Amino acid sequence: MLLHLSTWTEVEEYLQQSQGIILPIGSTEQHSPIGLIGTDAICAEAISKGVGEAKQALVGPTINVGMALHHLEFPGSMSLKPSTMILVLRDYISSLAKAGFRRFFFINGHGGNVATMKAAFSETYDHLATLGITDVRCAVCNWYMGREVYQLAKKLYGDKEGSHATPSEVALTWYVYPEAVKQGELGEPGRGHRIYSAVDFRQNYPDGRMGSDPSLATVEHGQRFYETAVKEISQDYQRFIDGK
Amino acid sequence: MLLHLSTWTEVEEYLQQSQGIILPIGSTEQHSPIGLIGTDAICAEAISKGVGEAKQALVGPTINVGMALHHLEFPGSMSLKPSTMILVLRDYISSLAKAGFRRFFFINGHGGNVATMKAAFSETYDHLATLGITDVRCAVCNWYMGREVYQLAKKLYGDKEGSHATPSEVALTWYVYPEAVKQGELGEPGRGHRIYSAVDFRQNYPDGRMGSDPSLATVEHGQRFYETAVKEISQDYQRFIDGK
Amino acid sequence: MLLHLSTWTEVEEYLQQSQGIILPIGSTEQHSPIGLIGTDAICAEAISKGVGEAKQALVGPTINVGMALHHLEFPGSMSLKPSTMILVLRDYISSLAKAGFRRFFFINGHGGNVATMKAAFSETYDHLATLGITDVRCAVCNWYMGREVYQLAKKLYGDKEGSHATPSEVALTWYVYPEAVKQGELGEPGRGHRIYSAVDFRQNYPDGRMGSDPSLATVEHGQRFYETAVKEISQDYQRFIDGK
Amino acid sequence: MLLHLSTWTEVEEYLQQSQGIILPIGSTEQHSPIGLIGTDAICAEAISKGVGEAKQALVGPTINVGMALHHLEFPGSMSLKPSTMILVLRDYISSLAKAGFRRFFFINGHGGNVATMKAAFSETYDHLATLGITDVRCAVCNWYMGREVYQLAKKLYGDKEGSHATPSEVALTWYVYPEAVKQGELGEPGRGHRIYSAVDFRQNYPDGRMGSDPSLATVEHGQRFYETAVKEISQDYQRFIDGK
Amino acid sequence: MLLHLSTWTEVEEYLQQSQGIILPIGSTEQHSPIGLIGTDAICAEAISKGVGEAKQALVGPTINVGMALHHLEFPGSMSLKPSTMILVLRDYISSLAKAGFRRFFFINGHGGNVATMKAAFSETYDHLATLGITDVRCAVCNWYMGREVYQLAKKLYGDKEGSHATPSEVALTWYVYPEAVKQGELGEPGRGHRIYSAVDFRQNYPDGRMGSDPSLATVEHGQRFYETAVKEISQDYQRFIDGK
Amino acid sequence: MLLHLSTWTEVEEYLQQSQGIILPIGSTEQHSPIGLIGTDAICAEAISKGVGEAKQALVGPTINVGMALHHLEFPGSMSLKPSTMILVLRDYISSLAKAGFRRFFFINGHGGNVATMKAAFSETYDHLATLGITDVRCAVCNWYMGREVYQLAKKLYGDKEGSHATPSEVALTWYVYPEAVKQGELGEPGRGHRIYSAVDFRQNYPDGRMGSDPSLATVEHGQRFYETAVKEISQDYQRFIDGK
Ligand code: NI
Ligand code: NI
Ligand code: NI
Ligand code: NI
Ligand code: NI
Ligand code: NI
Repeated sequence: MLLHLSTWTEVEEYLQQSQGIILPIGSTEQHSPIGLIGTDAICAEAISKGVGEAKQALVGPTINVGMALHHLEFPGSMSLKPSTMILVLRDYISSLAKAGFRRFFFINGHGGNVATMKAAFSETYDHLATLGITDVRCAVCNWYMGREVYQLAKKLYGDKEGSHATPSEVALTWYVYPEAVKQGELGEPGRGHRIYSAVDFRQNYPDGRMGSDPSLATVEHGQRFYETAVKEISQDYQRFIDGK
Repeated sequence: MLLHLSTWTEVEEYLQQSQGIILPIGSTEQHSPIGLIGTDAICAEAISKGVGEAKQALVGPTINVGMALHHLEFPGSMSLKPSTMILVLRDYISSLAKAGFRRFFFINGHGGNVATMKAAFSETYDHLATLGITDVRCAVCNWYMGREVYQLAKKLYGDKEGSHATPSEVALTWYVYPEAVKQGELGEPGRGHRIYSAVDFRQNYPDGRMGSDPSLATVEHGQRFYETAVKEISQDYQRFIDGK
Repeated sequence: MLLHLSTWTEVEEYLQQSQGIILPIGSTEQHSPIGLIGTDAICAEAISKGVGEAKQALVGPTINVGMALHHLEFPGSMSLKPSTMILVLRDYISSLAKAGFRRFFFINGHGGNVATMKAAFSETYDHLATLGITDVRCAVCNWYMGREVYQLAKKLYGDKEGSHATPSEVALTWYVYPEAVKQGELGEPGRGHRIYSAVDFRQNYPDGRMGSDPSLATVEHGQRFYETAVKEISQDYQRFIDGK
Repeated sequence: MLLHLSTWTEVEEYLQQSQGIILPIGSTEQHSPIGLIGTDAICAEAISKGVGEAKQALVGPTINVGMALHHLEFPGSMSLKPSTMILVLRDYISSLAKAGFRRFFFINGHGGNVATMKAAFSETYDHLATLGITDVRCAVCNWYMGREVYQLAKKLYGDKEGSHATPSEVALTWYVYPEAVKQGELGEPGRGHRIYSAVDFRQNYPDGRMGSDPSLATVEHGQRFYETAVKEISQDYQRFIDGK
Repeated sequence: MLLHLSTWTEVEEYLQQSQGIILPIGSTEQHSPIGLIGTDAICAEAISKGVGEAKQALVGPTINVGMALHHLEFPGSMSLKPSTMILVLRDYISSLAKAGFRRFFFINGHGGNVATMKAAFSETYDHLATLGITDVRCAVCNWYMGREVYQLAKKLYGDKEGSHATPSEVALTWYVYPEAVKQGELGEPGRGHRIYSAVDFRQNYPDGRMGSDPSLATVEHGQRFYETAVKEISQDYQRFIDGK
Repeated sequence: MLLHLSTWTEVEEYLQQSQGIILPIGSTEQHSPIGLIGTDAICAEAISKGVGEAKQALVGPTINVGMALHHLEFPGSMSLKPSTMILVLRDYISSLAKAGFRRFFFINGHGGNVATMKAAFSETYDHLATLGITDVRCAVCNWYMGREVYQLAKKLYGDKEGSHATPSEVALTWYVYPEAVKQGELGEPGRGHRIYSAVDFRQNYPDGRMGSDPSLATVEHGQRFYETAVKEISQDYQRFIDGK
């Protein structure tokens, strides 16, 4: 059940049975010369829809732009500052909490979002307490870190999975948008550097890849990642709702 | 050309020919018991894609949640505070301006966004000036206020078009998502009240409609609105790019 | 009744009969080489006093500096950032709402304020709701857009009224401060450009005028504008208080 | 020379000779049952105009609302939060500094403003440094603390001068606005308590006075305060401009 | 009783008998070529511990970094912006107020903190009122301005006490950390300039001293300052707790 | 070399040889009925001093209060909001970066700080870029997660190490402050719950422990943890400085 395709009366009914909602969160940032700029948002959105269907859970609007300041030296990348993103998440959660939602399950496609999301959850619990709401719970689920997804990636790509613009996420986007499959020669990627400023990042990772070879991705792989992730995360969602 | 389905190298090339980008902005808010909560975002996104194709212009990620604080008494509605939205738009525009974009054309689906967007543009011009960028231009284009769209709505619905949860916007969403057409009996809508707080709004507009009868919408109407809007706004975009 | 010339006990009494207050808001910005920098504040203040007398309504302190970032390339112009102005209006309204005021009628002299004011009203309703106050109403009345004022300007000046540093507003300031009438040769004004950054504005409008010829203004015209505006806006105020 | 009654071209000329500006800052807050709510702003504005004339210095718009949170339990009082006021002063000073102003002389009517003003000056110097401006200087001059004004108050009122709603400031407002002289019986004022929250303040100072007897004020006294202050502060301004 | 060396159950017991807490606040800023960068924090912390012992009062964590923007041209200096420091103090006080603390006695080592602290107290009273807490009281006690401390400094150093990097504060740090006594030739200090930007400050005070001769400091003097301050401020604390 | 016990001239010299600085960061929060409220700050500070000595590195002032909102239901706990902490870290790093520091090594004692610290680093890199500084690097080193420290804790305490108010950290504080060793009977701790709001936390962890038995701590253990951590982290610091 997608919030965007529902009416407020349908949401009112939904709240009689569940106070849970799934919120996809991605990023708009370079994913190498052959990976899509929308990769993280596309993955999070597709999996969220799948989990929403599997669990009859409501899925909210995708947060397309996340915390990707270190990618800004590559054209087309966009980012919120962490301080902005905290306010955005506070506003999202507060809006829905006023209506009765209590369990916020973020399916996340971008590692760079995690720290700011956790900061935002803390900020929001404190904010909600001033409104008399103390029983909201938020969780972040990184789809690419699920045990079975992770093992599949290792099996298919070994250490060419890398950690950014990975073949697994690129495969998933190609499965969702087969019309957007890109080709291209890629040399050796940068590898092993920590992330600091955007200038520093581009010096260390000149084409944007972090140790990955996204040219290994295929649409068929993407389907396997999609199905594996939806199955795995559906269970995670259920555990979260059950308070386990 | 969709930013989300492009690579950074494609964007780099695009910038050689154009410094313009289209950004769809909507809202996630009640649209009566039969209109979709995502109406404003759906309309903005669909038209943006159409204009992007027509003009070979880049289309950025949809801003799904806007300024809809006055709708928050209806479940499923979400909103940024104006102060948050100013920061979001500043961050979006600044990210892209650093890469060379100079013309930001927002296709907007929600009247409640306009004031905050204009405030955000002013804030952003001033912010960019501190970074040495003084030639950015932003414009907001409200798709529902284009002359031909407006006339079509008047012709089809007369004063039952109303000003929120209008049959024109609902029709457009049903054209885009025919699987989401809703049915339902609707009585007389509230009418003629100004907008103040969320509580006040719901008292005056108990089912969320402002003078409208969205049950008049049809998928076929939606197609006409879509085509009319894309054509009309493609010209607006060109004029904006041409500096007229 | 002017707040500045009242005592707190007088305000306490006033609140027994009315929860309405008039707040003049202007700007401190260039108004061409012959218009006063304080034009917008002077007009708003003078008309507010007139309406306050006519309706025995309380008139609060004038907000002298508004949102005029695009004028900052002209010496003597001052501006709040929109994000600052939102906080200022939130603080003004909240201070008075705590004491029992519920109807805030802003008489505005500057078009550039409007978007930020509307954003601020939304922000403030939401803020007040967290304090348990949901029945505050704010309105902005642009004195220069009243039907009769507008017609008078058209009649006197035709298209030389323009849209900034207009003869109508300049006339009104000269009526209020006849000692400040200025002379000066003015060539052809800039005309027809949209407003973006301050640098862009000055390029398009080199002496600050937007299509206007303020040299047509006279003190006698100013008196007519003053009287017309006070009469017209007094009715607007009454309707606002009556909830119509 | 009043900024509000000047044109931008006049300001441009002024800047050839002086980079100094006087900014009156007051407050809108209770001043006992017989003192005016605008007392602090009225005093600051009147003296600023006098000093401006004496020194041919430019006088900017009056900041009518200051930091008076502790007065908010008395109807008609208004306040900025300190965090808001810092942004307001930053915006005021930055606007003018961009045009070339370098010496900001605030004539202040309200003790409660001083701490926040000093914080704002520090914040602003740091902000301006990021814009490459390091030679701005700001000063606050509390008109009521000038040596001769202080001695006059002591001579006329002894310890009935008190520290809020003082006869000296009330006298000055009556001199400026003789039509606003108020009468009224006043009992013993509160005395000797420190200032904490608004609730605490009103408990300790039930009618708003802090140890003062404003009923001793006369219009004639007001004139003496005015003349003494203008003379004294004109010298202060000169020293500030001379860098002493 | 030091908060850092206590358990939460001990604090719970403490609150049965007292709602008071001492908070040391200093700065991390240059104190001339022979004074320690931590001088202000060291003094505040040492005296706070002494007063805490004398009065069996709880002593919270030292705020090591204060408002010292004007010292930033000297390496090793650190500062919060005033707007940041207001939030920090609001968070500190609010955290403790939620647990029942009501009397916050800040022992301060740095003149540059005072304005921002007072602004922060006002901001915090207002913030706490929105949480329903209106009886919190905060006080700032500048250890170096106590009558007896001041007289001792005058007696020992006359006008070589100066106003920054004073021999009295340096002596106190050397008493606390005798291993950190520094030697060095110092010429004539800057003297008599007001404080504006960091660049301006360093021009006027090239080695950081403001009229002082810290080379007069001795460990033995430091002990006398320590004992004098602890005795004097213990009485101040008691009066504050007693509401006098 | 401690910043607080250094002079600005010594820092100037230090910067000739190294642009690195160690910043201890802890928290002020409950650590069960027998662990100290200052545990996290005490550990971070002690280890930082040890590493500073071992590597002749400069050690800055301890950040005593961190992000511990979820502990606020226990008296004596204090916290910054994440949004405040981001500004604090931005101000700390920016102050020092202006003077030439480029490598910021935070030795952290509190897991709850990590997410906000990482968000703050991103925010700060972006902020510094606007000042033209793009080569700053920040790292967080959680002392309790070093491989050897972790193994020692497992060896000594097995699963009674838990994850908050752990015997390892408590032991270290007792080694540093043997006078503050506490005794007390502790029953079974809460275990296995995720962290959400402060109210939720206290319900799940009634005495504040998360699966730990701090009564197993001894001063002798503390010494071993101290020595192990200093040795291990000294190597980490060196690698960080060497850019590995
Ligand atoms: Ni990715
Ligand atoms: Ni709509
Ligand atoms: Ni105007
Ligand atoms: Ni006063
Ligand atoms: Ni000092
Ligand atoms: Ni700990």
